[in-house]
Amino acid sequence: MTVNKQILLASRPKGEATVDNFRLVETEVPALKDGQVLVRNHFLSLDPYMRGRMNDSKSYAQPQPLDQVMIGGTVGEVVESRHSDFKVGDKVVGMGGWQEYAVADATQPGILRKVDTSHIPLSAYLGAVGMPGVTAWYGLVKICEPGPGKTVAVSAASGAVGSVVGQLAKARGCRAVGIAGGADKCRYVVEELGFDACVDYKLHTDMKSLSTALKDACPNGIDGYFENVGGMILDAVMPRMNAFGRIAFCGMISGYNGEPIPMTYPQLILQSRLRVEGFIVSEHMDVWPEALKELGTMVATGKLKFRESVAKGIESAPEAFLGLLKGKNFGKQLVQLI
Amino acid sequence: MTVNKQILLASRPKGEATVDNFRLVETEVPALKDGQVLVRNHFLSLDPYMRGRMNDSKSYAQPQPLDQVMIGGTVGEVVESRHSDFKVGDKVVGMGGWQEYAVADATQPGILRKVDTSHIPLSAYLGAVGMPGVTAWYGLVKICEPGPGKTVAVSAASGAVGSVVGQLAKARGCRAVGIAGGADKCRYVVEELGFDACVDYKLHTDMKSLSTALKDACPNGIDGYFENVGGMILDAVMPRMNAFGRIAFCGMISGYNGEPIPMTYPQLILQSRLRVEGFIVSEHMDVWPEALKELGTMVATGKLKFRESVAKGIESAPEAFLGLLKGKNFGKQLVQLI
Repeated sequence: MTVNKQILLASRPKGEATVDNFRLVETEVPALKDGQVLVRNHFLSLDPYMRGRMNDSKSYAQPQPLDQVMIGGTVGEVVESRHSDFKVGDKVVGMGGWQEYAVADATQPGILRKVDTSHIPLSAYLGAVGMPGVTAWYGLVKICEPGPGKTVAVSAASGAVGSVVGQLAKARGCRAVGIAGGADKCRYVVEELGFDACVDYKLHTDMKSLSTALKDACPNGIDGYFENVGGMILDAVMPRMNAFGRIAFCGMISGYNGEPIPMTYPQLILQSRLRVEGFIVSEHMDVWPEALKELGTMVATGKLKFRESVAKGIESAPEAFLGLLKGKNFGKQLVQLI
Repeated sequence: MTVNKQILLASRPKGEATVDNFRLVETEVPALKDGQVLVRNHFLSLDPYMRGRMNDSKSYAQPQPLDQVMIGGTVGEVVESRHSDFKVGDKVVGMGGWQEYAVADATQPGILRKVDTSHIPLSAYLGAVGMPGVTAWYGLVKICEPGPGKTVAVSAASGAVGSVVGQLAKARGCRAVGIAGGADKCRYVVEELGFDACVDYKLHTDMKSLSTALKDACPNGIDGYFENVGGMILDAVMPRMNAFGRIAFCGMISGYNGEPIPMTYPQLILQSRLRVEGFIVSEHMDVWPEALKELGTMVATGKLKFRESVAKGIESAPEAFLGLLKGKNFGKQLVQLI
């Protein structure tokens, strides 16, 4: 028998999430039925959206059920197959969850996708060439509408999504300005990712001070803003937005614990005639092929750089996830399982 | 000589505007130069945007200069003309300002527009068939994208803009729901304007209570919301917005005194994938002909109803304007000058 270590949601957070909200269990991998595939997960993706699923509130997605394996994107290798489209050794991406092995019903279209690792590392399919990359692509291309000479700003700029936003903006002739926490991240964003500037929000304790720093970094104002954080950072960006600017709401990580994080001056939406739009990339599957083609080509040719924080072993997932919510990761947060 | 009574901006408000911010003066109407036209203003339009102009803050428009005639839309009659396009007796609409007579440089295109009063009352060109009407048309048609079966809500529903929003929405097969202050206004909105429902915000002292009332009035949620007010009303509407809903920011009258009026749950923009867009109708002159054609036809055929609050005499303008800011008007606020 094969033992499968799994992490379940044990309880819903009251305020901040803690390790006690999770529980590690060991189960036996069941025998496959016709049409099923057994995947050995190599990497688990940790993403901020998972925090929202831990709540029991009305949102765009169903809450993560209690006492079930935490949802999550995974890449791995087929180790047993009862479906003709998949053979042992195939590398696949899917929603395998926080566990070492996943049984997938391969008769459902889209559940598993085979990927080519000859030019792109397997883990990148959870980051720059995966959901975070397409998220960056959609918000930037479809909402911010970047173009030569425009200024695009993005928060959480060293992260899995933010890092792609800025590099795609640069490729479209924009000035790319990041917002990140700490000198190391800001240096990386500018020196390695090629952003034009990066503002360290940790140097600023109030909105005015941060907004002034953004003014220096964005001498021509901001035309497109990609929001991953919310709260004070959003408040500081809004006065810098140019007339007819666009704001893509991708995440508001600062509000995942359920507290309100007000937008202080919504009047600016009117005064600057902004368009503010929220989106969820899984609702725009039509753009995935186009986005993945651009992202894959850029990664394979070294034009799209990314960084990974890799925790080791399924047992490390809860701590790594809580660290992600506090910005302790540097680049895409993964858990390596093999 | 002809004496012209004018109202100037005497000082900028600190917080709430008062009558002391205005000054009445009497000047002599100057002799016309070539290309100029003298208009006797019959009606002056009072509009919430004027409050914003009284501030000295960065906004989309230049502040109203001190010691000059308050800006404002007017309709009137040509009483003297040195331009071949205009003859004495022509009815015209323009930005004549808070005064009895206005000298217009008719060589500048668009400064004066001749209007036909055979089927449409002159004053309507300041309301339903004027800037407020086109404002309603643009925000509804271009931002809210109404359609059969959708629910459209609008605040300040008995006002010059809101009343048109709801009637245009009804004409497009929508459920139209108003928000207004007081039983009289709500009754008018439903019984005379034909909205499906109207919520009296004065019956609700907190956001939750108002939001519950909106839930009853909008059993299928809200697809398009036209915002004239901001603050608690916006907070109460946002949880009622359906996925992919649209919010047109037209005005935030509750914040014109300069105080912040935070949006409490901007997370809802993300969770409900809303699009929130601010606009100023004067920046969309391309839609005016199409909008005015529909609005004019509807008024001339009795399909678009409106109501006016008419103050008498230029001296009454400051008081009437301050009342407008507090919602004391009922329908379009005008000052009749003749």
